[in-house]
Amino acid sequence: MSETKNFTLAVVPGDGIGPEVTTEALKVLDAVAARHGVTFDRTEYGLGAKRWHATGETLPDAELAEIRKHDAILLGAVGDPSVPSGVLERGLLLKLRFTLDHYVNLRPSKIYPSVGSPLANPGTVDFVVVREGTEGPYVGNGGALRVGTPAEIATEVSVNTAYGVERVVRDAFARAQARPRKKLTLVHKNNVLVHAGHLWKRTVDAVATEFPEITVDYLHVDAATIFLVTDPARFDVIVTDNLFGDIITDLAAAISGGIGLAASGNINPDRTAPSMFEPVHGSAPDIAGQQKADPTAAILSAGLLCEHLGLTEAARAIEAAVEADIEERTGSIRSTAEIGDAITKRAAG
Amino acid sequence: MSETKNFTLAVVPGDGIGPEVTTEALKVLDAVAARHGVTFDRTEYGLGAKRWHATGETLPDAELAEIRKHDAILLGAVGDPSVPSGVLERGLLLKLRFTLDHYVNLRPSKIYPSVGSPLANPGTVDFVVVREGTEGPYVGNGGALRVGTPAEIATEVSVNTAYGVERVVRDAFARAQARPRKKLTLVHKNNVLVHAGHLWKRTVDAVATEFPEITVDYLHVDAATIFLVTDPARFDVIVTDNLFGDIITDLAAAISGGIGLAASGNINPDRTAPSMFEPVHGSAPDIAGQQKADPTAAILSAGLLCEHLGLTEAARAIEAAVEADIEERTGSIRSTAEIGDAITKRAAG
Ligand SMILES: CC(C)[C@H](C(=O)O)[C@@H](O)C(=O)O
Ligand SMILES: CC(C)[C@H](C(=O)O)[C@@H](O)C(=O)O
Repeated sequence: MSETKNFTLAVVPGDGIGPEVTTEALKVLDAVAARHGVTFDRTEYGLGAKRWHATGETLPDAELAEIRKHDAILLGAVGDPSVPSGVLERGLLLKLRFTLDHYVNLRPSKIYPSVGSPLANPGTVDFVVVREGTEGPYVGNGGALRVGTPAEIATEVSVNTAYGVERVVRDAFARAQARPRKKLTLVHKNNVLVHAGHLWKRTVDAVATEFPEITVDYLHVDAATIFLVTDPARFDVIVTDNLFGDIITDLAAAISGGIGLAASGNINPDRTAPSMFEPVHGSAPDIAGQQKADPTAAILSAGLLCEHLGLTEAARAIEAAVEADIEERTGSIRSTAEIGDAITKRAAG
Repeated sequence: MSETKNFTLAVVPGDGIGPEVTTEALKVLDAVAARHGVTFDRTEYGLGAKRWHATGETLPDAELAEIRKHDAILLGAVGDPSVPSGVLERGLLLKLRFTLDHYVNLRPSKIYPSVGSPLANPGTVDFVVVREGTEGPYVGNGGALRVGTPAEIATEVSVNTAYGVERVVRDAFARAQARPRKKLTLVHKNNVLVHAGHLWKRTVDAVATEFPEITVDYLHVDAATIFLVTDPARFDVIVTDNLFGDIITDLAAAISGGIGLAASGNINPDRTAPSMFEPVHGSAPDIAGQQKADPTAAILSAGLLCEHLGLTEAARAIEAAVEADIEERTGSIRSTAEIGDAITKRAAG
């Protein structure tokens, strides 16, 4: 008799469609758990807009300390129009990413022929963006003076360190090395943001010498958006800064079947804290609570979670279940739970 | 007998395909000049990679003072791989934009049915991006410490002022007011870049009260890239910061027939210095000197130049000539000069 391995999950359903898609991701996780001899014990954390309205809290340190004790975090979506823009994003989502040192924000993109793409001729698209997650313009080192007066000045500071850039660049090279095409594209804007851009470029050039098999390419972020619509098949692994990564991964999702399919992992490769898995999409308050959201991105994120925990077979099972479901999509409308149930059934095997 | 009005142009052909496309734009300008009773006297400035290699100069102040005396500037493209990235961009192109206070960087996008789009179903696309041109992360207020060591830190500072944001927002509202759909979309990232983002948002909300006919919309930059490929027809006037504007206008060009058609004006609406007109595309060194570049974007930029100088009929004639040429494009390859000649002939009437 084999022993059952137990993993602990901190679950943050969040706002808008977050709870609905998280429910489906958990269904699928339970299905693969049963099949692969593991269990997922979870604790739910009621963080997000409701909590903020009730208590003014976004993520108290004591709760963060609790969350930190888990093996991984599953997050739905964060943000609501009733809360001033930035409060939940900075106070909850980014606080998690930064405090738990999620320096690799992993965002794969694939075009499934059956789902289609807004592009007329996308070609075979299968790439992954390694977005830096703990530096850049996201550090929150800006400020404002004389707010609300005609003399107001507001700054945002992008902070980039050799330490922070090198570790994510190394991770991206290792991923490229493990992929058949062995190609890495650095995306930045080093002709304008010369200090940060040159640090990134020099780092990629230096690490490249250790990976002689990898073909290395550089694109300015503006040019990268062009290629993402004219020739997305050219990409294999993209490594980029926090803000450029935010922008190009939404675009990548859009060209490859939509934001309903885009998964992400906020990964701490050193495992000094739990990694966090979430769909790329937002909380979509306009369709919340109506069973209209596609839970596929959340489910695929749960697949990345399994992968990260070393449950490779479970990860493959989730991916295969999703792909099979996607291949049979006919365009007829299914509820969030119907999609989740269909994928769960397949994943359960 | 009517008097001939004379305009002075500073011409900066620049690098790569810059000189080729500029030649065609000047042909077209001369053709409309003859027809509309004006002349364009021009002075060429040999700035760019060659000059930098020969003298180390990018844009000497004395030359900038000369350029400033003209009615307008026509620029081809700037940048070459033989020059460290950023030297010409910051030292020449951005120096011109910043010193001459080009705070409105105007970038129209239109899909011409005959040219096609990488999008399967783009719909009717006709919008204009008003990109701020003198602030944001482009100010060059970054720096680096301990360069080349493992302790390196590089920063980039985005500077945003009420003064700078309000003037470009006002310009964008006025443009929206003059357009039939009367819609303005602010693009920023105010859920993360809260200081700069809130300044932009508050400014748009305040100016909106003076333009009750305008429908105002807000999109995060990542969401904007999604809509640019899934529903670009929704946009009318977009107003955004310098970096976001750079990114989304390349994407906008890509979805609407390519970078070969995308024109831009770096405009000083207060007319305290000459405005500058240039294609959105770069210097494309890989195809330079081969008559392979499409000069249409440079020609349309010359059209924006006429518009800015009050030569409305000439501007219309250039636009009409380009549209007629585009409508008859068959996909057969023409040289840069052939395209320029064909448009010149039409513009000459
Ligand atoms: C909600 C927001 C703070 C977040 C980001 O900008 O990173 C989101 O857009 C994402 O991509 O995960
Ligand atoms: C060449 C570069 C400095 C420039 C910019 O970033 O503004 C270009 O990309 C543009 O859009 O005009």
